[in-house]
Amino acid sequence: MDVKYDPIIFSQIEALDLEQFIIGTYLMKAKTSDLLMRAGAVAVEQTTGTWMPVPDETPEVRRNHVGRIIGVYLVPGYEAVLPEGEHTCIIRIAFPWKNIGQQLPQLLSTVFGNISMTNNLKLLELEFPKSFTAGFKGPKFGIEGLRQLLGIEKRPPIMAMIKPCTGIPVDVIKRQFRKLVLAGVDIVKDDELIADPAHAPLEERIKACMEVVEEVYQETGKRVLYFPNITDRQDRMLEKAKRAIELGAEGLMLNVHASGYGSLGALAEDPELNVPLLAHPCFAGAMYLGESTGMSSHLVHGKFMRLEGADIVVYNSAYGKVPSVRERYVRIAQTLQSPFHHLKPTFPSPCAGIHPGIIPTMMKDLGNDMVIGAGAGMHAHPMGLEAGVKALKQAAEAAMNNIPLEEYAKEHIELKEAIDLWGIYDPSKTIFELTS
Amino acid sequence: MDVKYDPIIFSQIEALDLEQFIIGTYLMKAKTSDLLMRAGAVAVEQTTGTWMPVPDETPEVRRNHVGRIIGVYLVPGYEAVLPEGEHTCIIRIAFPWKNIGQQLPQLLSTVFGNISMTNNLKLLELEFPKSFTAGFKGPKFGIEGLRQLLGIEKRPPIMAMIKPCTGIPVDVIKRQFRKLVLAGVDIVKDDELIADPAHAPLEERIKACMEVVEEVYQETGKRVLYFPNITDRQDRMLEKAKRAIELGAEGLMLNVHASGYGSLGALAEDPELNVPLLAHPCFAGAMYLGESTGMSSHLVHGKFMRLEGADIVVYNSAYGKVPSVRERYVRIAQTLQSPFHHLKPTFPSPCAGIHPGIIPTMMKDLGNDMVIGAGAGMHAHPMGLEAGVKALKQAAEAAMNNIPLEEYAKEHIELKEAIDLWGIYDPSKTIFELTS
Repeated sequence: MDVKYDPIIFSQIEALDLEQFIIGTYLMKAKTSDLLMRAGAVAVEQTTGTWMPVPDETPEVRRNHVGRIIGVYLVPGYEAVLPEGEHTCIIRIAFPWKNIGQQLPQLLSTVFGNISMTNNLKLLELEFPKSFTAGFKGPKFGIEGLRQLLGIEKRPPIMAMIKPCTGIPVDVIKRQFRKLVLAGVDIVKDDELIADPAHAPLEERIKACMEVVEEVYQETGKRVLYFPNITDRQDRMLEKAKRAIELGAEGLMLNVHASGYGSLGALAEDPELNVPLLAHPCFAGAMYLGESTGMSSHLVHGKFMRLEGADIVVYNSAYGKVPSVRERYVRIAQTLQSPFHHLKPTFPSPCAGIHPGIIPTMMKDLGNDMVIGAGAGMHAHPMGLEAGVKALKQAAEAAMNNIPLEEYAKEHIELKEAIDLWGIYDPSKTIFELTS
Repeated sequence: MDVKYDPIIFSQIEALDLEQFIIGTYLMKAKTSDLLMRAGAVAVEQTTGTWMPVPDETPEVRRNHVGRIIGVYLVPGYEAVLPEGEHTCIIRIAFPWKNIGQQLPQLLSTVFGNISMTNNLKLLELEFPKSFTAGFKGPKFGIEGLRQLLGIEKRPPIMAMIKPCTGIPVDVIKRQFRKLVLAGVDIVKDDELIADPAHAPLEERIKACMEVVEEVYQETGKRVLYFPNITDRQDRMLEKAKRAIELGAEGLMLNVHASGYGSLGALAEDPELNVPLLAHPCFAGAMYLGESTGMSSHLVHGKFMRLEGADIVVYNSAYGKVPSVRERYVRIAQTLQSPFHHLKPTFPSPCAGIHPGIIPTMMKDLGNDMVIGAGAGMHAHPMGLEAGVKALKQAAEAAMNNIPLEEYAKEHIELKEAIDLWGIYDPSKTIFELTS
């Protein structure tokens, strides 16, 4: 009997050896009443098939390589009558990962390749088996390793950004860098807007900042990690990474999303580049902000960054200047921190508009294993930069000891000045209530 | 007098040396009634500023490096009263390109970096001065160079894809490749879903296909261009490119969007890799399908690909299986074909569901300088592959000679069989009418 629905494509998860498959979950909108066939077309398009049968797509090829529909769920969950019009559903497809190999660019080409252009399809989730993940080394340091490098046992490390974003020459950068380091920050990163401009070339910046790192280390015994931004065309980026290490850099930063998936991984898996990596989120919004296009933010900022070996992932907090659904910002952090086969956990660093008044709320959401990243919320403190760093640390101390900020501020003038200026974020309206 | 609107940021295009600026045009939606300040915030965020003034953002830094608002246009064009609620407007920002340097990843980090995550902002256009574009070599061959390589003066070259997309071993690929070459195609590309899987490794594929290229060249004097897909993590991709050339490959294909901007450019600007490059569009939809997020498709498939040095850009036709607004598909081709400083023109290749019945409509839209790419529309011809290629060529001949397909089909059985099966695309409903 010739059935309409190919029994290989329309499968059950229980029929599959899950080590052989990557499972993608999609949000799909469609007007057709045959949502099963529509889902099947997606699975076939991204594996063996095209719009007409072709001679070399033998039954054996299909059996071994085609994508499997393992779930189609209508939202709302109509059972008796399907109304006319557009339907929203969740579909789950299992892709044989041997089609892909253990690499991100080809993974994306397969799980969200041509179908990325079909509209009304958003990639919500990817689930990776151990066998696929084994091809990725992940973070070289991870949360534990980076804590050891920094000599910080429990509290969130404090990360500064050089500000303004672009336009200042190397001597001003060096002066500001020294101030930041002496003010007590643990990490300094370049702004994402400075890569290798003529007014502040990368090599000169690294030389200048590493001189300061050494000086301060000699003077105080404290060693700050500097992450220079090596973003460039991929061949030059790889050269710059090696050159940065020669010049003494002890960390590297990349605008990963503008550079492409696989670019950070190339750094992470190079044994010569034995330094932690920081992933910056700029340009990522182009890929995740569509409501029924693109991919979920916890894939973009979370799973892909961890597979690629980021030790710190900067992204936008739900409480700052760049809007973000709170559930998304928390889920990104969870994706970075919680177990993921053999991959070490990665520090989330929700940034953009962070100031001391937000810290306790963020630490309640994410725990201590986050990097507190602040730009203006440190530089623009009314008592100056050093006070700005102190106020952030004081806010973290208050949170770790469960002391309300207002109370801790009574004994800590820097914190008091900060919350007088910027206020205290009030989470009461947004906090999750089991009974609500 | 201290004015609210910084007179450096709120500028006129006439005040600028246009060689120093890249101009971005954005679609912005906002609820605020102060759309000027909202636009200004975007310009500042992506250049010198952050959410609070910081000490080192001196007037000199701002004067030299800040983005300039050169246009804010309400749509509709309210003049007397601005209604309450959300407003749509077009904003134009001039970015000093010396902040960026001549590279794509940092360009994207600047013109669509953190602001990509702000929602309700779509990048519609980028205008590049000659001075910036001078840092890019663009296509090595371009339309003219590729025509010379192929020995094709005027007609559109015919490009085949190996089908099914994935799952067939090298011996089957080789057999199919030989059939395609003997059938008379000019170019054969890998499918985007095959990169370097265990069942058909890249090196073996190249060896097998290049053997066929040589054999057929000896036998017939016709030389076909084969574009193997070298997509991989960036460091491996660069190695694979060199290895492919050693093995005799005379073209290279990359899933550019899944690999990142700058990855194709790394190939194009490597003097050792003196072969044409083919850019595949898979994953691109993640970046352009949002209606008020992401970027325009003619940037993604057009300007960026040309800057990156693509000789052929594959993307989805408006008449095939992947939906696309007709104006967009045509504009992408125009962006690739028409003058762009010193950069050579690039062949557009609108694909996905192409068959002979669509060819005259596409050639009326784009002219002869396009590559006709077909998969199933060639392989699944009822008389076989050779007839499939002939039918596509016959359709192009008919179009070049302004003969209706039905008429040309009377004398050409392959074309007749194709249009009997797949029909003739009727453009009458969508053609542009000046009076309508």
